[in-house]
Amino acid sequence: MTTFRNYLLDLQARITGALEAVEGEGGARFLADTWQKPAGEKLQGDGLTKILEGGRVFERAGCGFSHVRGPQLPPSATQHRPELAGAPFEAMGVSLVFHPRNPYVPTVHMNVRMISAGGAAWFGGGMDLTPYYGFEEDATHFHRTCRDALAPFGDDKYPRFKQWCDEYFYLKHRDEQRGIGGVFFDDFSELGPDQSRAMTQSVGDAFLAAYLPIVEKRQGMLWGERERGFQLYRRGRYVEFNLVWDRGTHFGLQSGGRTESILLSMPPLAAWSYQRSDAADSDEAALTQRFLVRRDWL
Amino acid sequence: MTTFRNYLLDLQARITGALEAVEGEGGARFLADTWQKPAGEKLQGDGLTKILEGGRVFERAGCGFSHVRGPQLPPSATQHRPELAGAPFEAMGVSLVFHPRNPYVPTVHMNVRMISAGGAAWFGGGMDLTPYYGFEEDATHFHRTCRDALAPFGDDKYPRFKQWCDEYFYLKHRDEQRGIGGVFFDDFSELGPDQSRAMTQSVGDAFLAAYLPIVEKRQGMLWGERERGFQLYRRGRYVEFNLVWDRGTHFGLQSGGRTESILLSMPPLAAWSYQRSDAADSDEAALTQRFLVRRDWL
Repeated sequence: MTTFRNYLLDLQARITGALEAVEGEGGARFLADTWQKPAGEKLQGDGLTKILEGGRVFERAGCGFSHVRGPQLPPSATQHRPELAGAPFEAMGVSLVFHPRNPYVPTVHMNVRMISAGGAAWFGGGMDLTPYYGFEEDATHFHRTCRDALAPFGDDKYPRFKQWCDEYFYLKHRDEQRGIGGVFFDDFSELGPDQSRAMTQSVGDAFLAAYLPIVEKRQGMLWGERERGFQLYRRGRYVEFNLVWDRGTHFGLQSGGRTESILLSMPPLAAWSYQRSDAADSDEAALTQRFLVRRDWL
Repeated sequence: MTTFRNYLLDLQARITGALEAVEGEGGARFLADTWQKPAGEKLQGDGLTKILEGGRVFERAGCGFSHVRGPQLPPSATQHRPELAGAPFEAMGVSLVFHPRNPYVPTVHMNVRMISAGGAAWFGGGMDLTPYYGFEEDATHFHRTCRDALAPFGDDKYPRFKQWCDEYFYLKHRDEQRGIGGVFFDDFSELGPDQSRAMTQSVGDAFLAAYLPIVEKRQGMLWGERERGFQLYRRGRYVEFNLVWDRGTHFGLQSGGRTESILLSMPPLAAWSYQRSDAADSDEAALTQRFLVRRDWL
């Protein structure tokens, strides 16, 4: 328990430190906000919310740690474990979403978490990439890094978690993927407590290697009003996914989670317009046609 | 049935015509998009979506008519009428959300609708106002117009529907009202089919009188970056309400409704930032303290 908590706090520090390094001298810094659930609430616990806004490279980047204890596992968590229904539980995790300023740099999401109850622990997490302008080599790099992080834990893990990610990050009302995917897993304990935790940590540890090279490669690309308009429009889809389909966000908001920490994932600015359509041969049309579909990216 | 359909199409035409008049010469015009559900889908029906974007006065204004028939009433519609569970039904309505450009002009929502099944019909609808900068006299005018529209149908209607509106347009995760309210009712048939319809139409007919005087009064007020920033931030709350709490939006998106028509309510541009706080004596702080609370506005 303590081991994983320490891992998570260290991971959060490493990632936010690396982002500040990307921001560089004179760039923005993370604000760190420690919070604690007031005594008397049903959920007890604490958290460390880190947020960077208005940066040179990142327009809004949120990275939150939280650790809560509750008297009773919610029914949604015990579908596969009826024997634990109503048991006291603990849940902890790190979750991040980074929204870059340059439309050529993709938005990214990563999460690692653990729930424990009745002496058992199960893990979840993953990472996925949401470009505004697609680059096949970036998608391949991101997926290869995910695959390599999972390889020591069995060859089946990447293909299973890649498919799970495609299924999870899907906007049914748009019939479109949120991005180019990555990996996602939940409710995971099949390797036993130590190896399941090691696998989860391997995913968390791979995050910077999966994402930063893409930031560095695309960060210098020139962009203007056209690219900015498209980015804002596509960010609207990100909002739609998170508020309509993401179970964690939706359930968190409806059940009294800490709103400002849950909504770290929201973009700084997002746009909607009616039936936007892009020329068939444009880079904007290519995004939906060639990137926001289920593909083998390796 | 035909009578109410004709009423709705006429109402839509009157309202969009009035908005175009406010836009004035050289202002924006509504685009009209007729749609029909493809044969073979479970829901059959048609609609007329009208949308104005990038106007002088209105940055995004959507006003949709739809009329659908289905083989089976959804369970959510039959909670209070178990005898109609699974019966074929018809539903039609007009729904609008207008997002003005000037932050001193409030956003507004109005909806009138009817569902019929098994020879019975029940009505729903209402209107509510969401200011960015509050003016007591505007709130009073809006509520008085609602009250007057309902007065011929019994003195109890306005207080009941005003309370219902406060309860419905509430962001639980922010513990805050969406705006200054108005009226809301659903599942209404207690006056019999003719008078229940007449009451619903009276609400629809009162919309322009409730809203346009406020637009005219505030439209000329000067605004700058500060007001724009606050408007964009508050529009984020509008998005949160509609995607997280509004049953119609959420259910529509999850159940295969026409996405672009459902999301007519989205603002053209919206912003999020972490724990924004405004000086205690500012107009921005006054909004949440004095306006986004349940109050008697008459």
